[in-house]
Amino acid sequence: MQFKAKQIADLIGGSIIGDPDILISGPSKIEEGGAGTISFLANAKYTDFIYTTTASVVLVSKDFVPERPITCTMIVVENVYVALAFLMENFNSGISIESTVSVLTSIHSSVVIGDNPAIDDYVIIKKGVTIGKNCKIYGQVFIGDNVEIGDDVVLYPGVKVYHNCKIGDRSVIHANAVIGSDGFGFAKDETGKFKKIPQTGNVVIESDVEIGSNTVIDRASMGSTTIKSGAKLDNLIQVAHNVTVGSNTAIAALTGIAGSVEIGQGCLIGGQVGIAGHLSIADGTMIQAQSGISASVKGKLYGSPAIDYNNYLKSYAHFRRLPELAAQIRALQAELDKLSQIKS
Amino acid sequence: MQFKAKQIADLIGGSIIGDPDILISGPSKIEEGGAGTISFLANAKYTDFIYTTTASVVLVSKDFVPERPITCTMIVVENVYVALAFLMENFNSGISIESTVSVLTSIHSSVVIGDNPAIDDYVIIKKGVTIGKNCKIYGQVFIGDNVEIGDDVVLYPGVKVYHNCKIGDRSVIHANAVIGSDGFGFAKDETGKFKKIPQTGNVVIESDVEIGSNTVIDRASMGSTTIKSGAKLDNLIQVAHNVTVGSNTAIAALTGIAGSVEIGQGCLIGGQVGIAGHLSIADGTMIQAQSGISASVKGKLYGSPAIDYNNYLKSYAHFRRLPELAAQIRALQAELDKLSQIKS
Amino acid sequence: MQFKAKQIADLIGGSIIGDPDILISGPSKIEEGGAGTISFLANAKYTDFIYTTTASVVLVSKDFVPERPITCTMIVVENVYVALAFLMENFNSGISIESTVSVLTSIHSSVVIGDNPAIDDYVIIKKGVTIGKNCKIYGQVFIGDNVEIGDDVVLYPGVKVYHNCKIGDRSVIHANAVIGSDGFGFAKDETGKFKKIPQTGNVVIESDVEIGSNTVIDRASMGSTTIKSGAKLDNLIQVAHNVTVGSNTAIAALTGIAGSVEIGQGCLIGGQVGIAGHLSIADGTMIQAQSGISASVKGKLYGSPAIDYNNYLKSYAHFRRLPELAAQIRALQAELDKLSQIKS
Repeated sequence: MQFKAKQIADLIGGSIIGDPDILISGPSKIEEGGAGTISFLANAKYTDFIYTTTASVVLVSKDFVPERPITCTMIVVENVYVALAFLMENFNSGISIESTVSVLTSIHSSVVIGDNPAIDDYVIIKKGVTIGKNCKIYGQVFIGDNVEIGDDVVLYPGVKVYHNCKIGDRSVIHANAVIGSDGFGFAKDETGKFKKIPQTGNVVIESDVEIGSNTVIDRASMGSTTIKSGAKLDNLIQVAHNVTVGSNTAIAALTGIAGSVEIGQGCLIGGQVGIAGHLSIADGTMIQAQSGISASVKGKLYGSPAIDYNNYLKSYAHFRRLPELAAQIRALQAELDKLSQIKS
Repeated sequence: MQFKAKQIADLIGGSIIGDPDILISGPSKIEEGGAGTISFLANAKYTDFIYTTTASVVLVSKDFVPERPITCTMIVVENVYVALAFLMENFNSGISIESTVSVLTSIHSSVVIGDNPAIDDYVIIKKGVTIGKNCKIYGQVFIGDNVEIGDDVVLYPGVKVYHNCKIGDRSVIHANAVIGSDGFGFAKDETGKFKKIPQTGNVVIESDVEIGSNTVIDRASMGSTTIKSGAKLDNLIQVAHNVTVGSNTAIAALTGIAGSVEIGQGCLIGGQVGIAGHLSIADGTMIQAQSGISASVKGKLYGSPAIDYNNYLKSYAHFRRLPELAAQIRALQAELDKLSQIKS
Repeated sequence: MQFKAKQIADLIGGSIIGDPDILISGPSKIEEGGAGTISFLANAKYTDFIYTTTASVVLVSKDFVPERPITCTMIVVENVYVALAFLMENFNSGISIESTVSVLTSIHSSVVIGDNPAIDDYVIIKKGVTIGKNCKIYGQVFIGDNVEIGDDVVLYPGVKVYHNCKIGDRSVIHANAVIGSDGFGFAKDETGKFKKIPQTGNVVIESDVEIGSNTVIDRASMGSTTIKSGAKLDNLIQVAHNVTVGSNTAIAALTGIAGSVEIGQGCLIGGQVGIAGHLSIADGTMIQAQSGISASVKGKLYGSPAIDYNNYLKSYAHFRRLPELAAQIRALQAELDKLSQIKS
């Protein structure tokens, strides 16, 4: 899609200084620019770039007063960030998908689909599934028996949802994520072989949740693995059976959460964190990337096993100078030996 | 599926105290309960819950003597766990798949398929593949040339198996796992560019193996990457080229095993463990989550690089009080300086 | 494919000692061997195996002089490694795919495809996509709107490429990798709920790049996430929005790179490394597996947070004997107390 500067200015209620007919096909950063792009100036730190940017158009605040000549076209707006967010949603066209159910699909006759569906090619939907209205289900998605999907849900290509799971309104699941595979439950028999413990529960994803690409959320052994409303999970995360992730908690990539962990609401969990089984993480806990959590915790944490964040950094500062500390101990011993010798 | 309490009691050889006609549609935990669910009491710790549970039916041992009135229906059995395992397998119906080969598949004419196959939609099977009897191959699976699959194998949706790999009897591979992709083998040429080392081997998965969702097992450069019988791998695990994982070894999620590692049998390897290339891990080794293994090891281990588990925890206890140890050293020095001064 | 020893000798310009008609169907290691396989002897350390190997044929250098009787057939060549690399490329036949576009695909009428395409079953290609010549696109791949793919590109089964991304000549992407999913960008609103920041950029993969199975590369919020020419990424790696990975940099499995990180060229990054957002990694940096990078760095690194590699190992050596150091401090204190007492 291409727009004239004038069209954009009209959309966001701005006024133009420069060429109203210049064509724009996408956004750019002001320091990178590029012909045919629109950028923005919202942070004074970047002011210098407006005099040199190659972006065709730059959004500026009505408070901006140039101190040197400017070659790009400017659109002057009340609030640059608000205008920008509005614009980005318009440029972010996404993947095309017909507002219909493709004929190249395999959908069981018992499936109930709400108004205005968009279901792409090679999708498989098993029996007893219900899907709300305005859902987008991209190509090669698999939805197992009796899955319940709310309204306005987006499943990106290749997502696999096992039987009996539930996905709430407005939740978004990215490509090749797996929802509801068997929890890792085995018991050793008397011969040392593992016997599988049946995983009969499901996964419940509440509303407004976003799940990243290739993330896996295992079904509960009994009951539900639950991702509460507004939680955001990045890519390549492991959520084991019977875990609960609280509302509005965000978890970064490659983190692993072992079975039956209860994570509170509003937590921020960094990347590559590991949380051992059956622990509770209090509301609002912050966990530094790569930490290993081996006890129920709250506050801000770091280390493996994780301790208080600031204490970890203090200890680590001394860890870095351990060779020096060891040398000091040796020197003290030598000095003391000498002193004792003199004494005796 | 719904069952009457009486039908369940008959199935597991139990006797009923309460309503024999009450309907059950799934299991629950006794502390969570829910109408229409069946729960169980096997651990004395949970006894209090039987007086308050909202589960419709609870399995109890013949040794259980109530001390207060109970509102739920009870099924009295010899061994609660045995009855439970039997029941859970019956409730765990899984994803429906026709006991036939779907017409919505692409299967090469040379493929040999054993009795009683269930092959779902949009599956691709390339030439020379052989598949044993009673296999379930779910939607959107890809099986490359000359793959050999044993009896009673289950491949969940989206699994990709590259050419020449072998999968033994009763093995189960979860959604979007990848078996047999190229090992990460590159050699720098004189200009600093990487040249690919051909990866001509395969992956051999023996019998009774379970592989988690989105786990990747790379093919050997030559020979085989081997997962021995009874091994259980969780989700999102990386197994590099030429690795051997021993029989009845269990590996938790997000662990990475570098090239040519030999892991013994009966090992327990935690989540997010890293094992450097060409090492041997002895039979029965236990490795704590997040450890980094940089030498051939046995016993129980922790740390990066990993050392003996108890020694790591002892050292870590002192790590936590390093600022204090450093202060003690400074105090000792000061005291000693004073003493020396007095002396001189 | 099967070859006679004589055919192989002709291919690589070698001469035969033994049976020219013996049949070969694949390579083996000399210590493992196996009838019908061809192995090689290039490292003197393995010389003993040539007298006992069960391989049918062994490649040897013209300098090799047997000291005992040999039962296998030998092919004598100038340079064993060169001959071997040549052979392995011939044995590594890969997954069969017709040199045509399958009819079992969903390709938008606007898509432009270069000469000699091989596009497998159940592939979806959305509108505006351009594909160069000699590309192999395996089954169940998804390519979103306006994606640009160069010449000689290979996309293995199940790869998902979101809209507007670019993939350069000769790049290879392994099974179930995801290119261009949304970056993990959310801002908390005044009520503590996350609001999604639109991710309007794309991913640019330059030429000669290899991407492992189940790896995820997120699209930029604006501009591009870029993987420069010749970079090699292993399996299960997370590359966040707006990251740049430099030319000929290699990254091992399960590493996570946070947003806006700039990685230089020729870097070697181990497995399970974490790199925090907005950092710069200098050209040629080497990062030990499991390290956590929390500052812009160069050189060779280890630890979480990572410090100089050798300093980390020195500190860690003292970490291991921290209980002993603590005991020494206690002993010193006791000795000093005694000395002071005597003194006073």
